[in-house]
Amino acid sequence: MHAYRTHTCAALNQSAVGQSVRLSGWVHNKRDHGGVLFVDLRDHYGITQIVADSDSPAQPMLEKLKLESVVTIDGDVKARAPEAVNPNLPTGGIEVFAREVTIQSRAEELPLIVNSAEDYPEETRLKYRFVDLRRERVHNNIILRSKVISSLRQRMIAQGFNEFQTPILGASSPEGARDYLVPSRLHPGRFYALPQAPQMFKQLLMVAGFDRYFQIAPCFRDEDLRADRSPEFYQLDFEMSFVTQEDVFQAIEPVLAGVFEEFSGGKSVTPAGEFPRIPYREAMLKYGSDKPDLRNPILISDVSHHFTSSGFGIFEKIVGTGGVVRAIPAPNTADKSRKFFDEMNDWSKKEGFAGLGYVTRKGGEFGGPIAKNHGPEEMAKLYEELGLGDDDGLFFAAGKEKDAAKLAGAARTRTGEILGLIEENCFKFCWIVDFPMYEYDEDAKKVDFSHNPFSMPQGEMEALETQDPLDILAWQYDIVCNGYELSSGAIRNHRPDIMYKAFEVAGYSKADVDENFSGMIEAFKLGAPPHGGSAPGIDRIVMLLADEPNIREVIAFPLNQRAQDLMMGAPSQVSPRQLRDVHIRTVEAPKEG
Amino acid sequence: MHAYRTHTCAALNQSAVGQSVRLSGWVHNKRDHGGVLFVDLRDHYGITQIVADSDSPAQPMLEKLKLESVVTIDGDVKARAPEAVNPNLPTGGIEVFAREVTIQSRAEELPLIVNSAEDYPEETRLKYRFVDLRRERVHNNIILRSKVISSLRQRMIAQGFNEFQTPILGASSPEGARDYLVPSRLHPGRFYALPQAPQMFKQLLMVAGFDRYFQIAPCFRDEDLRADRSPEFYQLDFEMSFVTQEDVFQAIEPVLAGVFEEFSGGKSVTPAGEFPRIPYREAMLKYGSDKPDLRNPILISDVSHHFTSSGFGIFEKIVGTGGVVRAIPAPNTADKSRKFFDEMNDWSKKEGFAGLGYVTRKGGEFGGPIAKNHGPEEMAKLYEELGLGDDDGLFFAAGKEKDAAKLAGAARTRTGEILGLIEENCFKFCWIVDFPMYEYDEDAKKVDFSHNPFSMPQGEMEALETQDPLDILAWQYDIVCNGYELSSGAIRNHRPDIMYKAFEVAGYSKADVDENFSGMIEAFKLGAPPHGGSAPGIDRIVMLLADEPNIREVIAFPLNQRAQDLMMGAPSQVSPRQLRDVHIRTVEAPKEG
Repeated sequence: MHAYRTHTCAALNQSAVGQSVRLSGWVHNKRDHGGVLFVDLRDHYGITQIVADSDSPAQPMLEKLKLESVVTIDGDVKARAPEAVNPNLPTGGIEVFAREVTIQSRAEELPLIVNSAEDYPEETRLKYRFVDLRRERVHNNIILRSKVISSLRQRMIAQGFNEFQTPILGASSPEGARDYLVPSRLHPGRFYALPQAPQMFKQLLMVAGFDRYFQIAPCFRDEDLRADRSPEFYQLDFEMSFVTQEDVFQAIEPVLAGVFEEFSGGKSVTPAGEFPRIPYREAMLKYGSDKPDLRNPILISDVSHHFTSSGFGIFEKIVGTGGVVRAIPAPNTADKSRKFFDEMNDWSKKEGFAGLGYVTRKGGEFGGPIAKNHGPEEMAKLYEELGLGDDDGLFFAAGKEKDAAKLAGAARTRTGEILGLIEENCFKFCWIVDFPMYEYDEDAKKVDFSHNPFSMPQGEMEALETQDPLDILAWQYDIVCNGYELSSGAIRNHRPDIMYKAFEVAGYSKADVDENFSGMIEAFKLGAPPHGGSAPGIDRIVMLLADEPNIREVIAFPLNQRAQDLMMGAPSQVSPRQLRDVHIRTVEAPKEG
Repeated sequence: MHAYRTHTCAALNQSAVGQSVRLSGWVHNKRDHGGVLFVDLRDHYGITQIVADSDSPAQPMLEKLKLESVVTIDGDVKARAPEAVNPNLPTGGIEVFAREVTIQSRAEELPLIVNSAEDYPEETRLKYRFVDLRRERVHNNIILRSKVISSLRQRMIAQGFNEFQTPILGASSPEGARDYLVPSRLHPGRFYALPQAPQMFKQLLMVAGFDRYFQIAPCFRDEDLRADRSPEFYQLDFEMSFVTQEDVFQAIEPVLAGVFEEFSGGKSVTPAGEFPRIPYREAMLKYGSDKPDLRNPILISDVSHHFTSSGFGIFEKIVGTGGVVRAIPAPNTADKSRKFFDEMNDWSKKEGFAGLGYVTRKGGEFGGPIAKNHGPEEMAKLYEELGLGDDDGLFFAAGKEKDAAKLAGAARTRTGEILGLIEENCFKFCWIVDFPMYEYDEDAKKVDFSHNPFSMPQGEMEALETQDPLDILAWQYDIVCNGYELSSGAIRNHRPDIMYKAFEVAGYSKADVDENFSGMIEAFKLGAPPHGGSAPGIDRIVMLLADEPNIREVIAFPLNQRAQDLMMGAPSQVSPRQLRDVHIRTVEAPKEG
């Protein structure tokens, strides 16, 4: 017989009745029922009920043991009495009568209770993460993460991608977020940096001719932390050669839709091949966001043309000076009091916006100052144009286009939430496409790149040479799910001549480009294929699937919000010898406060 | 038609004749045959021959292009003339007559030639790695690596393992090799360290109840570099709960044998379930090494008892003072001159050994001073005992047991190599087991751990309490393939009481243990399962399968031997601001020389 177990704690059922078995696991729970001791024995796979009656030599030992001790039980499988059967447990039809118990590990007093859903401070949970991880919810999250990543990998390989590891000891880059630095021992005064993303390397893999690359890539950013940020995070980093934007979409939609379908627990998922492509400008108009939550049925409209002349002078003035008015429907709000609308206005101001106008409507009757001043007939026209009904309210966001769009987007989200309109039990994907290549920088009073200078402009050289820079779009795209951006991506600019020109349009000289990006440019001069890719965030994907609001719930051993590992004591002081070895000295810390 | 390709450069064959196709790739080679231009167009998948005859508008453009430029070719598939068919190429039956060419990327002068096997200095190769990686051998190595890792993963998952990521920003540990440090921004004066291995984390995953963990784990050691060492390397890190040593073997043998069978290119592989288990002491005797190359048929024997009294006084004296004499056969060396034997002796001295004695034998006739002094009759007895024949020579390594074993092992390897006895085209695996828990430290004049203090001693507490420490064996094991150690592993000591006792035997107090290893000990006090694992080196596995002697040949973007990334310029100087952010200062570098 095996030293520790003949079965796992999830394996036994009615068909095993009569067998002599050996099980090992943690003492999850104990109950004393009139001299008979019931123990829930737990391992990674499940729970089996152990019975130690008063004539079993196991009883006194088990009685004395603290919860979470590890034991091996020798015993006999018996069917439970019909009234004791637990249909919710795979092993719920049987119990194991303990003949003998071997103590593998005696637990001392526990800092947190494993067999309860009680909430503990994060500090306790992370300091004793090896106990916390035994708890059902987080245990399941970590298993989910493992299975999601494994599934992503297999789906990428099925799409013809090869996984390659890129260096973790890399070079510091002046761009992007703050790097984590690693002092060099062999090269005094020099530093490696941990990668913020393997962007350069994946593009160089394309230049090296590896057609379809992916990696479950660890990335590092030394930024201040939030619930959805960890200093160390993972991306499904991928890149493809000889592709258009549409090829990228067709390659990755089956991977994302597939993995969401596999792990959504029955929630509906936008099918592969049907992810809507929404141009950036349309997204900013209809959803007031480039990360639209398509579960929210509310659509924003531009109604500026209704207010070029209006009794409602504020809107007239805004429209007259180049601003816009956006309308956000609040469907079926006839039964809402003025308070509902006023509170929305108050909320918008508290959020730093200019304020939210509104129209109420009950059985066709308009209410509120805007309707009054604008006039019910004009308002009825507007309603008709928007396809709104007799009991639909309407919010207005007015101002400069950028500000109005942002406010409208926030109001759309809040209205949808308060009115309970957000569709549940679904994952709705979309692509945001056609990002503008350039924008006008109000501060610097010049045209500059609006997102990624390394994306290929649509129309390539010709567009750069002939179009108004502010009209040029980029082959750049975001993938969005339920209002969360999973990643940005782009067809890259692989042509040095187009690269120099694209920078020139934004006011940078050839020397500027060569100074800052010579590595990439020089590589592109030795034969580079057209290529593009993206890098969906793994942690975010798992958070969505696990329905967890905090990234630390889906990482086995996360750093806390102060970037500390409380369990292992990192970061820690190191010896003077270690610092001498890498030719650095610490600077006295500035006093707090 | 797709913007870049209807087919890859490996896809077209006779069945495509007559089709109009579009291909994209690199200009691998060009040949001008009397006004007809032949171009080998290469992509990741293969090579297709492009023909541009004098009336094709593509000809002048292709003629001017440098090798390694990237082009898209529109053309028609035609069957090659029978005499022009290349049976070694999947596309060797056809060629594509170019109608049109689009230049995607013009290559400038290349630092190394892709279509040649010419050797270039490593500096050139690594600086232009994105060109070097296009070359067939290294391209194939990197693809092999990707496929090996993917196969390892799938095999581990098939064995019931889940992959988890452990932190890369970890805590510095006083043990082991030198850590790479990462200064903390939020905690002035404190440092993270990159993991040398996820040892603590994988054991804590077992304490957390995750039964079977694995990870293709990046590991980091700031050590001086050799051909088979990289600062950044990967392990197939795994750990299992409720297992004996034999369970570990049974779980991992199918994974290793499977992956070697899959990628060995027809070489034979020790089948899973048949890896020999060789006790450490036996390995040191028979092979003179704990990393025996079982492809070498030569077996070492202890022949000390033949020399307790001998005409060969040196051996008699060595044996008389507690030393040993080990015999290393040199089979079928009747035709070897004295020079062969003398040179072996010279070699052993050059390697720092005491020298290698020998006996020659031709047709039963012994030769050499040892045979003469020891006497031919006694020598014949010794030969009979070892099962040696009339034409077999014999080397002797004599001295203290440790030294003699080491010399015998080196002589066994060299003899096998020189005599061409190493079996080719096979991968021979074995486990080395039963490592001693303790050894006598001659310098400190005390018993100390011989390998890993955290392995479970065989016999557990009872052994520690009752046996001579030098007789206690550990549940520790190495896996060896063709003379290379792929990894160490162990059943861990998960019991605080046994841990304290094991350290006590080696002269360490409870306070010593608590001070240095409190993290682990405290975790074990909250319910720890028996567990064990190992961590075979991925780079080494790929090196063996690719038959490459240098680890940098199987890493896409390796650091060079001075730990520099010549392509990206790492390590590099960083800005004063970056250093201030993380509260460190560089120390002026000591002058060289």
